[in-house]
Amino acid sequence: MTSAIGLVKGMKALGKKCGIKKDKPDMGIIFSEKPCNATAVYTSNSVKGAPLYVTKEHLKNGKAQAIVITSGVANVCTGKKGIEDAIETSKYAAKELGINYNDVLIASTGIIGHYLPMERIREGLSGIKEELSKDGNVAEAILTTDSCKKEAVRKIGNCTIGGIAKGSGMVHPNMATMLAFICTDADFSHDELKAMLKESVNKSFNMLSVDMDTSTSDMCILMANGMAGKVAREKFQKALDEVCIELAKKIASDGEGATKIIEVQVKNAADMESAKKLAKSVVCSNLVKCAVYGNDPNWGRILCALGNSGADFDEYKVDLYYGNISIVKNGVRVGFDYKKVKEVMAKEELKITVDMKSGKESAIAYGCDMSEEYVKENSLYST
Amino acid sequence: MTSAIGLVKGMKALGKKCGIKKDKPDMGIIFSEKPCNATAVYTSNSVKGAPLYVTKEHLKNGKAQAIVITSGVANVCTGKKGIEDAIETSKYAAKELGINYNDVLIASTGIIGHYLPMERIREGLSGIKEELSKDGNVAEAILTTDSCKKEAVRKIGNCTIGGIAKGSGMVHPNMATMLAFICTDADFSHDELKAMLKESVNKSFNMLSVDMDTSTSDMCILMANGMAGKVAREKFQKALDEVCIELAKKIASDGEGATKIIEVQVKNAADMESAKKLAKSVVCSNLVKCAVYGNDPNWGRILCALGNSGADFDEYKVDLYYGNISIVKNGVRVGFDYKKVKEVMAKEELKITVDMKSGKESAIAYGCDMSEEYVKENSLYST
Repeated sequence: MTSAIGLVKGMKALGKKCGIKKDKPDMGIIFSEKPCNATAVYTSNSVKGAPLYVTKEHLKNGKAQAIVITSGVANVCTGKKGIEDAIETSKYAAKELGINYNDVLIASTGIIGHYLPMERIREGLSGIKEELSKDGNVAEAILTTDSCKKEAVRKIGNCTIGGIAKGSGMVHPNMATMLAFICTDADFSHDELKAMLKESVNKSFNMLSVDMDTSTSDMCILMANGMAGKVAREKFQKALDEVCIELAKKIASDGEGATKIIEVQVKNAADMESAKKLAKSVVCSNLVKCAVYGNDPNWGRILCALGNSGADFDEYKVDLYYGNISIVKNGVRVGFDYKKVKEVMAKEELKITVDMKSGKESAIAYGCDMSEEYVKENSLYST
Repeated sequence: MTSAIGLVKGMKALGKKCGIKKDKPDMGIIFSEKPCNATAVYTSNSVKGAPLYVTKEHLKNGKAQAIVITSGVANVCTGKKGIEDAIETSKYAAKELGINYNDVLIASTGIIGHYLPMERIREGLSGIKEELSKDGNVAEAILTTDSCKKEAVRKIGNCTIGGIAKGSGMVHPNMATMLAFICTDADFSHDELKAMLKESVNKSFNMLSVDMDTSTSDMCILMANGMAGKVAREKFQKALDEVCIELAKKIASDGEGATKIIEVQVKNAADMESAKKLAKSVVCSNLVKCAVYGNDPNWGRILCALGNSGADFDEYKVDLYYGNISIVKNGVRVGFDYKKVKEVMAKEELKITVDMKSGKESAIAYGCDMSEEYVKENSLYST
């Protein structure tokens, strides 16, 4: 089956085993026939993995042609040697691919504080050019303990956007990375791509939380090789939004120990910043997440989380809905059918709507519930 | 046994059942023979319980003589009626105690969104003056699902500070309140008390986190009746710090599902704000809490949490210790005895020390680990 990346004109991919992990694909390559305009966004964590520094450096000119992703070891907190290893990886890959090493981007995910097994990586990289194909399974190779691969595709006229992501599964402690790689054959300048990616990421990955622990390795790269020509920016933006949101939701639903997705829409907030803060505060609250897991409509926790958001609002204007069922009107609870609410909550996706009635801005945040499995996965399996 | 409050000259207390909860003490009274200078700090949640508005109003003149605390219903998100109920409670209590209702402070803890059962409260309040005593068990009456009462006492010369607190236990969802009441017979002005309470709270309760969900009802009151006369402010501050920290640690160790206390000391930070942010970020991280529960020394999560704190620092200066065992030196791990670290982690209190080597400020944050019980308590017991 052609991969989400392979569906994009001129793009090939590869997923293979190089021996970082035991018996699982752990090296992924994305390659474009033609050089791409490219841009990326990175983790806000002030402790950043070595690959991020190298990718940032290589993207200074706004150009890239390949991405090398390894999984199993994050190459974070590894000092000078970590940076050297990431640069060496890009040089080896570049030689194999016959391109400049400055056009190779690097990403890694896995345990913090370990060095990359460079010998295995060098071995893995040899011969990759021949191995690249339209159905190369890069989406599989970038996973750590995710339970499934995450891909999304949108067509806009002749153009295609293909994206893959990983994140949220965790067995080995210290692993917690969100990576996303999005390729397109549309023709846009670096500046256009940069602005569009920022907008889409702000609506999707930046509105996503599994456990509030921002990883040291998060990265989202957008590459455009222009081989399908021009397309209207507005349409492209919309499709890019959709790809990013689909990937973000796939990460949420595969969150550690998650049994369902939570989507919190805050409507009619006074301003956009407030709308985002309010929505994220609800989706991030451990107490809300536990209640959703237990199908317990304890709306007081949602009001409490709104109050903790840092946004200014009038609590006696707030209306709250689970699905379409009205729970709170003007900050005070209404009589609701408890059994029906529990039914709505028991579904795989719970939509919570909060109407602030204070303005016109709205925002949606994505997350998941919290079960005992979350604690088990993060405590019982020792390093 | 004389209660922590009763040890203070001129102070009496009472804990009784008034029928808000089933068969458990749910009404507590603190009463001073003489009017007190008094001050309080309140939750930072923008959604605040009705009792907080009334207490704030009654403390405008810096004076108080009694506190009425009810447990079982928080009187939050209850609109105008909630405020009226809190005022009525203060008026009934004042009449019984023969004082001005403006000198009665009110606090409640329990479920959000329910009205106080005023008839039971009126009944409960009748006759309280006769029931007050030196060993009145107010510390018990203010609990919700805490597993034990929390008291702390310090003597400074002739003066006594007696404090009680509740918090962190949770069975009924929507309950999550930290309340603390501290009484002294030392003689200080309202302004002095205000400054000293702020300083102590910033070092204790404000450095405490069980689950990052700041309640709508948090309140800490300090009352001083002056009956033991003057005492050096410096000595009093130190004793007040100790009382607050002892109460905060007692709350942490009784955290929902907690099996141990975590104490994170950040040393040699560039400034005090950074020291506090860094320490709190570690103690608040779900991933760190889960790892500590599993006795897993995955220090990468601690570095990750430091990086998420919002404080600026050089990761390659950071040293990290579990107990006295060196784990990380200059941001990179050192060879440590894994078995010994697990032994240190298995104790009831884990001290994590982070040396930033960037300045002279230090701060300590208090928290607890996260077990499956946390999720169970907050999901499986439905409203």
